[in-house]
Amino acid sequence: MKQMNQTGVTVWFTGLSCAGKTTVSEAVAAELRSLGYTVECLDGSAVRQDIGKKLGFSKADRDENIRRIGFLAHLLTRNGIIVLVSVISPYNAAREEVRKRIGNFIEVYVNAPLELCEKRDNKGLYKLARSGEIKEFSGIDLPYEPPLNPEVECKTNLEKITESKDKVISKMEKLGYLQRFSD
Amino acid sequence: MKQMNQTGVTVWFTGLSCAGKTTVSEAVAAELRSLGYTVECLDGSAVRQDIGKKLGFSKADRDENIRRIGFLAHLLTRNGIIVLVSVISPYNAAREEVRKRIGNFIEVYVNAPLELCEKRDNKGLYKLARSGEIKEFSGIDLPYEPPLNPEVECKTNLEKITESKDKVISKMEKLGYLQRFSD
Repeated sequence: MKQMNQTGVTVWFTGLSCAGKTTVSEAVAAELRSLGYTVECLDGSAVRQDIGKKLGFSKADRDENIRRIGFLAHLLTRNGIIVLVSVISPYNAAREEVRKRIGNFIEVYVNAPLELCEKRDNKGLYKLARSGEIKEFSGIDLPYEPPLNPEVECKTNLEKITESKDKVISKMEKLGYLQRFSD
Repeated sequence: MKQMNQTGVTVWFTGLSCAGKTTVSEAVAAELRSLGYTVECLDGSAVRQDIGKKLGFSKADRDENIRRIGFLAHLLTRNGIIVLVSVISPYNAAREEVRKRIGNFIEVYVNAPLELCEKRDNKGLYKLARSGEIKEFSGIDLPYEPPLNPEVECKTNLEKITESKDKVISKMEKLGYLQRFSD
């Protein structure tokens, strides 16, 4: 049995691979869940397995992948779920399209310098991209377009995870998505 | 603001084109919503536009389409939503896979004789299938495998819509998904 009293919203974490999108979003999810909110986390690469098997990494296929993740987020959001999406989503136009479709939308730019992301390289993908074994990698041989007006910017090279997390929670509160905080 | 106190479940309406899947599921949705439940309706052909653009109608592509709709339904169900899926889904194995993944699952066989479905032919698809303009149409040049053990069978050639709807609601109640009915 679910007991809910919440407004659906999608919090969209965009940024380079290894910028800290999933890390920050997981910290946000943990805090919200501890407060009793119903939260769904959608990870870009995981979701690809489920609804994007035939998609590659060209601009067109990435845009289609973002559109599909946006559709999932939209379905959940309109049913009152708080959805945390972590996906590179390198193109402004695709993110704007998703924002328009969903409505209740908060864009979080998870910003870390490329050099730092490349140093972290949790999955060894930058190494493969540099050696040419992976093509079409955002930040290496494809562009990453930083958000123009993100609701939140987390500088994960300067902030602790808890600071980034607090910025997101605070913005959600200010925008009226966490009413129970002010009860 | 959503106020919910419900258990997530997927009610999966399977049957030939024009058997009445969407009609019955919409009647169920209307009743549940009037009682305050949060309900999402997923229509197979609509969802195809959103997450299945590159899929055709071969067995493999249909199975992949069903898997994707199942994934959507799974996400919503595990977040406490009542999901009503209407999709031909002609193959037993694909439906069984979805059932296993989702867990809280009710299969509704919307059963009407092919001749009647063909006579209804709301979208003119049978006509196109008979003339060969559409290929791979369930019931015409592809099989439809009736469910082996559906939780509910609606015979839409013999029952009124309200009777079919009541059968589904009653089964949901019996299986414990509509607790507030017995409050």
